[in-house]
Amino acid sequence: MKISELSARTGVTVPTIKYYLREGLLPEGERTSPTQASYGEAHERRLRVIRALLDSGVSIAETRRVVAALDDPPANPNELLGTAHAAVTPAVEEPLDLSAAEALAVGLGWKPGMCAEDVLHAVARALQTLERAGFAVPDGVMPVYLESIRKIADAEIAGVPQESIEAAVEYVVLGSVLVEPLLLALRRVAQQVASGERFGGA
Amino acid sequence: MKISELSARTGVTVPTIKYYLREGLLPEGERTSPTQASYGEAHERRLRVIRALLDSGVSIAETRRVVAALDDPPANPNELLGTAHAAVTPAVEEPLDLSAAEALAVGLGWKPGMCAEDVLHAVARALQTLERAGFAVPDGVMPVYLESIRKIADAEIAGVPQESIEAAVEYVVLGSVLVEPLLLALRRVAQQVASGERFGGA
Repeated sequence: MKISELSARTGVTVPTIKYYLREGLLPEGERTSPTQASYGEAHERRLRVIRALLDSGVSIAETRRVVAALDDPPANPNELLGTAHAAVTPAVEEPLDLSAAEALAVGLGWKPGMCAEDVLHAVARALQTLERAGFAVPDGVMPVYLESIRKIADAEIAGVPQESIEAAVEYVVLGSVLVEPLLLALRRVAQQVASGERFGGA
Repeated sequence: MKISELSARTGVTVPTIKYYLREGLLPEGERTSPTQASYGEAHERRLRVIRALLDSGVSIAETRRVVAALDDPPANPNELLGTAHAAVTPAVEEPLDLSAAEALAVGLGWKPGMCAEDVLHAVARALQTLERAGFAVPDGVMPVYLESIRKIADAEIAGVPQESIEAAVEYVVLGSVLVEPLLLALRRVAQQVASGERFGGA
C-alpha cells in the first residue's frame, strides 16, 4: 500500500509516519519509484505498536530499543524479559546501595543473580524517593505487595505464548510496558472502592 | 531558620527554593526584615514532599494541587482519596465509552457511583491503548490482576492512620502517588524471577 493508505488505516498522519521512518522506528518501505515506496501489513502492525508505546509515555529512544528487541529477539525466552526491561529502564546514573532492594526482592523469591541489576536499581530508587519524602509503607502492607505482585508475575509469565518466538517477544515487550498504566488505574479504582466500603458515605 | 539553612538541611538549592515559593508550592516564610524570612520545620517537611513528588514525575501543576489537598483536607476520609487522585489524574479530554472499564471494575467490587469518573476514564484509556497496539491480556491473567490489586488496595486502606486527619491525608496523598514506581519496579523483579524459574538458563 502507499503511505497515504497506511496513514488512513492507522490514523497516523503522513508527516508523522515520515518522522518515524527518519527516526528509524519504522523500517523503510519497498521502493516502487524514486519518490514512492510500498508498505505492507508488517508496517501497519509496527506503526500501531509504536503509537501505543509513545502514547504510554515511552520515549523515542526507548521505543527505538523496544523495536530493536522485536526485530532481533534473543534465542532464550528467559533473556527476553531482560531485553524488554532494559529497553525501558533508565540507565543507572548514580549507583545506589542495593541491600534494601535485595532484602525486599527476597520476598518475591529472588536469589542473587536472578535479575538484572538495573531493575533492582529501580526498586532502590523508588525506596529512596519514599524515604526522602518521609513516607513509610505500613508494616502490614509490604508483605501484601510482595505476595500479590509475585502472583501477578506468575500469571503473566505462565501466559507467555509458546507458539512462536515472535509472539513471545511481542507479548513480553508490550505486556511489560503497556500493562503498567492499566494496573495503576485499576489500583486507584480499587482504593476508592475499598475506601468507600470502609469509611462509607461519599 | 534562614533560607540558606533550609537549603543545607534539604539539599535543595536556594534558587530552587525561591522558584517553589514563586510557584506557590511552598508557603512564604515569616518576614523578619524586608529582605529576609524565617522558615520552620513545616517548610522543611513540605520541601521534602515537593521534591519526592517532582522526582516521581508529578508535574508542577499536579504538585500544586497535591499540596493544596494537604493544606485543606476534606472532612470525610472517604473524600480524601478522590481529592488525591483528582490532583494527579489528567483531566478527561475526549470522553470514552466506559462500559469495558466498568465491567472490569465490577471484578474489583465496584458498583455505580463508587468511584470518581476520571479514575474510570484512566482505566478506559489504558484499555484503549492496549487495544490499539493489538495487545490482549490473556484470559487467565486478568482475574489475577483484579484479585491481587483488590488485596493490595484493601491492605493500603486498612493502613490509613487514624490518629489525625493530617496524618491520614499525607498517607493517602503520598501513598497513592509515590508508591507507584515501587510497585512497577517490584513487578519487573518478580517477572524476571518467575521467568528464570520457568524457563531457567541465563
